[in-house]
Amino acid sequence: MPSSEFVCVDWGTSSLRLWKMSSANEVLAKRRSKEGMSTLARDQFDAVLERHLSAMSVGSDVPVVICGMAGAAQGWQEVPYFDLPARLAEIAAAAVTVNANDRDVRILPGLAQRPPASPDVIRGEETMLLGAELLGKAEGLFCLPGTHSKWIAVSEGSVSSFSTVMTGEVFALLSQHSTLSHFLKAVSVDYANSEAFKSGVEDALEKPEAMLSALFSIRSTPLLLGTGKAAEMPSRLSGLLIGSEVASMKDRAAGSVQLIANGSLAVAYTKALGIAGIQTTLLNAEELVLAGLSYAADAIWS
Amino acid sequence: MPSSEFVCVDWGTSSLRLWKMSSANEVLAKRRSKEGMSTLARDQFDAVLERHLSAMSVGSDVPVVICGMAGAAQGWQEVPYFDLPARLAEIAAAAVTVNANDRDVRILPGLAQRPPASPDVIRGEETMLLGAELLGKAEGLFCLPGTHSKWIAVSEGSVSSFSTVMTGEVFALLSQHSTLSHFLKAVSVDYANSEAFKSGVEDALEKPEAMLSALFSIRSTPLLLGTGKAAEMPSRLSGLLIGSEVASMKDRAAGSVQLIANGSLAVAYTKALGIAGIQTTLLNAEELVLAGLSYAADAIWS
Repeated sequence: MPSSEFVCVDWGTSSLRLWKMSSANEVLAKRRSKEGMSTLARDQFDAVLERHLSAMSVGSDVPVVICGMAGAAQGWQEVPYFDLPARLAEIAAAAVTVNANDRDVRILPGLAQRPPASPDVIRGEETMLLGAELLGKAEGLFCLPGTHSKWIAVSEGSVSSFSTVMTGEVFALLSQHSTLSHFLKAVSVDYANSEAFKSGVEDALEKPEAMLSALFSIRSTPLLLGTGKAAEMPSRLSGLLIGSEVASMKDRAAGSVQLIANGSLAVAYTKALGIAGIQTTLLNAEELVLAGLSYAADAIWS
Repeated sequence: MPSSEFVCVDWGTSSLRLWKMSSANEVLAKRRSKEGMSTLARDQFDAVLERHLSAMSVGSDVPVVICGMAGAAQGWQEVPYFDLPARLAEIAAAAVTVNANDRDVRILPGLAQRPPASPDVIRGEETMLLGAELLGKAEGLFCLPGTHSKWIAVSEGSVSSFSTVMTGEVFALLSQHSTLSHFLKAVSVDYANSEAFKSGVEDALEKPEAMLSALFSIRSTPLLLGTGKAAEMPSRLSGLLIGSEVASMKDRAAGSVQLIANGSLAVAYTKALGIAGIQTTLLNAEELVLAGLSYAADAIWS
């Protein structure tokens, strides 16, 4: 344990979460905000952090450990990627100290997968995986769904490969900007019971190579089968895209996946993976990232 | 042949083409404009048509035959789809006369593919296929690339199946509205010689199920391999998307495709199909649609 209080921060693209921790690793206070990396200029990170710390009555001598996009080229200070294969326990040692700052602030590196493997990067998810290892769950394939879903393979405490899938972003693009958008007005979807979601997943699993043509069914189905079908199209599109994502990862899953998600994403991916014959274990993202950050704090300051 | 002059019109989503024809089937004059269906309200079609006819000195008793989106629900007057399997020579008999119009104006139907086949529709391409049949070229698989590419299977004078692939629209969405757009600034691509286009096609053909993850390489490749790579990313994205389209149609092509395209699309698809081991025969879209419309005029008015 660090000898004093410390603060853990998960600073992502669109959100910021902070936990004030005791030297005995208990959560003393926590906060969250929408001040993600994408909303901030480089010289604003320090002031945003200090404002949240002040609100949690954190003294100026308390150190802070950060994971996520704060370490990106467009973030607070660029932290070089840690290359694969990456031993999770060694990530903390590659943390970078923020320059010219009164407080001791460290940013953890993301991971890079370089050629000849398919070029890919993550920032933040590696800290959840570190947490998962500490909690005894870090073997096999992990799925972290979202705007950019991440699928991460972990073996014997090391990340061996990963893949970013643009599922959530493509759903948003098609809903907001495409010729399909007329048929994709916002609705809430009961993923667990929606027939349209289920058949979208099944169609994608059956013909995963035909995604660009399956998309057009969002338009042609209501045209040919009546406008009543339009209400089902957001569910169908979600099924097609998540089904395509699952189809591309199925061989790597070998029958089971640890799913780091909550809310409707957890329901949707559990359902889609189940249709593909893949068992899921649901893990809690907040618990994992906090375990990983706390471990890093201990490695850096104790 | 019709006993008098007639006018052929191809009225698409984004453009309009007109040909003034002699009774001996010779082109006397032609015009084109950007006044496609998507730019017009229902009550504007008549005036737009008359203005172009007047500019070509077409008398008020000369009949007009139209194919394409003028017959869509959002067009001039909805023309019911002709169902598959569709004998090309019978399309003209399903033409609909525009109501309450002084001039004799007919709009040809599009085609509908209904369940249990994958729901899909075309409007305009069927008239090119009719033209191809008349010119002795209508057997096998036809590819008409574009914003929404159409792949149409023709056998013994009938359309047996078709598929719409949203390749061009997805390229535009990702270029203009996505988190990849920073790496997709407009450049001209030498499709015949671009290594990035070629390797994009090859990657898509090798893992056609992994399109949603391959897309992220547009961002991660310049991040990891240097900003010099950014200039290649539009070519790579084009290769990934066209490669995915070709991968999904490869089995139906059986080694050869008749490609209805011109300019850079003709070069790109010839190249991509060649990489997949598929031979192409290039056909001229204008020649085909004019042959189809002229045949329809003859069937209707002679």
